[in-house]
Amino acid sequence: MEIRTAAKKMKLSAPVLAASAMEQRNRALDCIAVALRAHEAEIFEANKKDMEYAESKQIAKSIQKRLKYDENKLRDSISGVLELKELCDPIGKVLMHRQLDDGLILKKISVPIGVIGVIFEARPDAMVQVASLCIKSGNCAILKGGKETANTNKVLFEIIKNAVIEAGLPAECLLQAELHNEIDELLKCDNDVDLLIPRGSNQFVRYIMENTKIPVMGHSSGICHIYVDKDADKELSLSVILDAKKNYPAACNAVETLLIHRDMAATFLPLLSAMFTEENVKVNGTAEVQALFGSDMGVMPEDEFAMEYNDMEISIKLVSDVNEAVQHINYFGSHHTDCILTENDETAEYFIQMIDSAGVYRNCSTRFADGFRYGFGAEVGISTGKLHARGPVGLDGLVTYKYVLNGNGHIVGDYSSGKKKFNHRDL
Amino acid sequence: MEIRTAAKKMKLSAPVLAASAMEQRNRALDCIAVALRAHEAEIFEANKKDMEYAESKQIAKSIQKRLKYDENKLRDSISGVLELKELCDPIGKVLMHRQLDDGLILKKISVPIGVIGVIFEARPDAMVQVASLCIKSGNCAILKGGKETANTNKVLFEIIKNAVIEAGLPAECLLQAELHNEIDELLKCDNDVDLLIPRGSNQFVRYIMENTKIPVMGHSSGICHIYVDKDADKELSLSVILDAKKNYPAACNAVETLLIHRDMAATFLPLLSAMFTEENVKVNGTAEVQALFGSDMGVMPEDEFAMEYNDMEISIKLVSDVNEAVQHINYFGSHHTDCILTENDETAEYFIQMIDSAGVYRNCSTRFADGFRYGFGAEVGISTGKLHARGPVGLDGLVTYKYVLNGNGHIVGDYSSGKKKFNHRDL
Repeated sequence: MEIRTAAKKMKLSAPVLAASAMEQRNRALDCIAVALRAHEAEIFEANKKDMEYAESKQIAKSIQKRLKYDENKLRDSISGVLELKELCDPIGKVLMHRQLDDGLILKKISVPIGVIGVIFEARPDAMVQVASLCIKSGNCAILKGGKETANTNKVLFEIIKNAVIEAGLPAECLLQAELHNEIDELLKCDNDVDLLIPRGSNQFVRYIMENTKIPVMGHSSGICHIYVDKDADKELSLSVILDAKKNYPAACNAVETLLIHRDMAATFLPLLSAMFTEENVKVNGTAEVQALFGSDMGVMPEDEFAMEYNDMEISIKLVSDVNEAVQHINYFGSHHTDCILTENDETAEYFIQMIDSAGVYRNCSTRFADGFRYGFGAEVGISTGKLHARGPVGLDGLVTYKYVLNGNGHIVGDYSSGKKKFNHRDL
Repeated sequence: MEIRTAAKKMKLSAPVLAASAMEQRNRALDCIAVALRAHEAEIFEANKKDMEYAESKQIAKSIQKRLKYDENKLRDSISGVLELKELCDPIGKVLMHRQLDDGLILKKISVPIGVIGVIFEARPDAMVQVASLCIKSGNCAILKGGKETANTNKVLFEIIKNAVIEAGLPAECLLQAELHNEIDELLKCDNDVDLLIPRGSNQFVRYIMENTKIPVMGHSSGICHIYVDKDADKELSLSVILDAKKNYPAACNAVETLLIHRDMAATFLPLLSAMFTEENVKVNGTAEVQALFGSDMGVMPEDEFAMEYNDMEISIKLVSDVNEAVQHINYFGSHHTDCILTENDETAEYFIQMIDSAGVYRNCSTRFADGFRYGFGAEVGISTGKLHARGPVGLDGLVTYKYVLNGNGHIVGDYSSGKKKFNHRDL
């Protein structure tokens, strides 16, 4: 079926899914967990085809690792689905309960967003996670996974869809887009799709953001900073910086720029230099840094600091105080996650207050910016936008609310004429 | 100063305003209230010029009423500002407080959005209300009011800006755009402006939405429905329908379409006909309605029901049951505010659950959809979008949040290697 036609049908059945009981959505998650195990041979067989194709195309081993769906990943997927089941129902929560006047009662109630399009990278576990998050939160979903795992995705999607139907939820609530050109079709469904969540390269996410009228949640870049204050503990700093760079350099929450207080430079830069040489981290910095650094490094001008390497490479600049660090980060950063290393509470408080980012950290690695690590069970993505959801987005970011007003013939004319007066009171 | 240059400066001073104490922002509101009274002669003089110009251009009396800024409106503005002052601080709230592991503490804290552009209709009271909401919520604002009240706006803005400076808040936190072509400049400031709130005609709001990359909050149309169920109380229904149409027909929350259960048609349509004739409401409906209506009415085809009159005119259609009403509203509506009139609890519950709108009402007028009536103190607009804020938007819709993580050298490597385990616990 054409994506547009399917999205229109989905939109009309979205209220049915939104009205489903939590027990029914949880039953669907149970069915998914059982079916994943029951069909493991089929899944591994499909994944083998994807892996053979990747091998034949000589795709880098580091990427092949992500494409692979083995017993470990299946087990993680199943336990992830079952953990999600245990989380509170994000919909139907009464967020406000207020009397406007006698007998005129306002409630603000959490409801699903409706129809969500998620376009994600080639990682079979992402298919299971994203679909489960949408089901748990009562959202219809159009799912498009990376083409490098097309065979695995197809099998996983069928398993999930059948489980959903088995649990009695509407068959229209899940749709898989398989062709790349269907993405462009999806971008045009602004009447029927309420939200798009693209994941993948900066370039791809920016393409999505610039080519649709549908609201987009996500991040195009992750330029995370660590500021090493004059009151930083040096040993702690080295350990946090190394983790933030090396733990997963391709992740959006890896550190890209170090800002170092000038008072620390003479003692700290040689330690950094030794560590980065040993760990094979390539360093770029200002001429001032180079003079003190003690090993080979690239020199970069001030205006190139909005740089995301996604690799074992890092930028370094010196600053005179925390305020200069704040100015730099708010100007060059991507408002993702930024960290201060300091033992000084006052300096830390200033930094935390003034940095305009989704995550502001003290004395810990930027790599903690992640839905699972925050205890959200799972995440559908990380948002660098400021509206709706910011930072790692779990179930809470997949709901909105509606206002329900119950009266008994109340009319506004009585209040505009002064015959009646509002009597606001939270219940 | 050019809007773009000013927006860039504003962006950099936004964290300073965000860090200001509530007492200081409240002091600014106090200063505004005092200054408005102190400068009343100047304000009324400026408004006189605007009114003379409107008269010379033969602008409709109903619009002239909105342009006028007299003692009554000044008094309302002052009391509005002082009421806003009494409301809780929307920023700095701890929305989540969670231990991720020993010594690794996550807080989710409400913060201002940053820089907001508000483009509003020619109503001097809107200038005071919008500026006050932004100050209270710690947001920098670029304000552009309708040109028909340019003289009044200019005086009001100067008063407000001076009050803000007197309270010690950054001078850059408020900017007035006075020229119409500055709107197009503003639309291009997607690096520095975090949110746009346009108010005005559908056409204008749609123009804004289609010509900027900045997130837009608002509504382009307000197609509100009332469904008269077979179990509706007829007298209550007539009164609510009349209020929803006549109380302020030009408002976005006025009713535009009536859906009537077929079982009610024969008895209810003649009553409606008599009422609408007496009140000079023009009626359009399907051929089926015409046959039963009993007075002159226009006939309209099914596919024209997405009609917003903003006037003393209304569409009517018959439906077989609540489900048909729901389908019609979710398809033709604008997801603003829709109402069911019924004495049947079960039918009402179904309607409330299934309607996908910001406001879903039972037995009361759609005209209640308003920030002041909801008890928000004031509103910056009404959103028909589903993300971030939905329905009337008060202070809560002008904030976002950031995640603050405090550690003591915590690194992710310890958790990925299995050396440590997360120990999530809400504090």
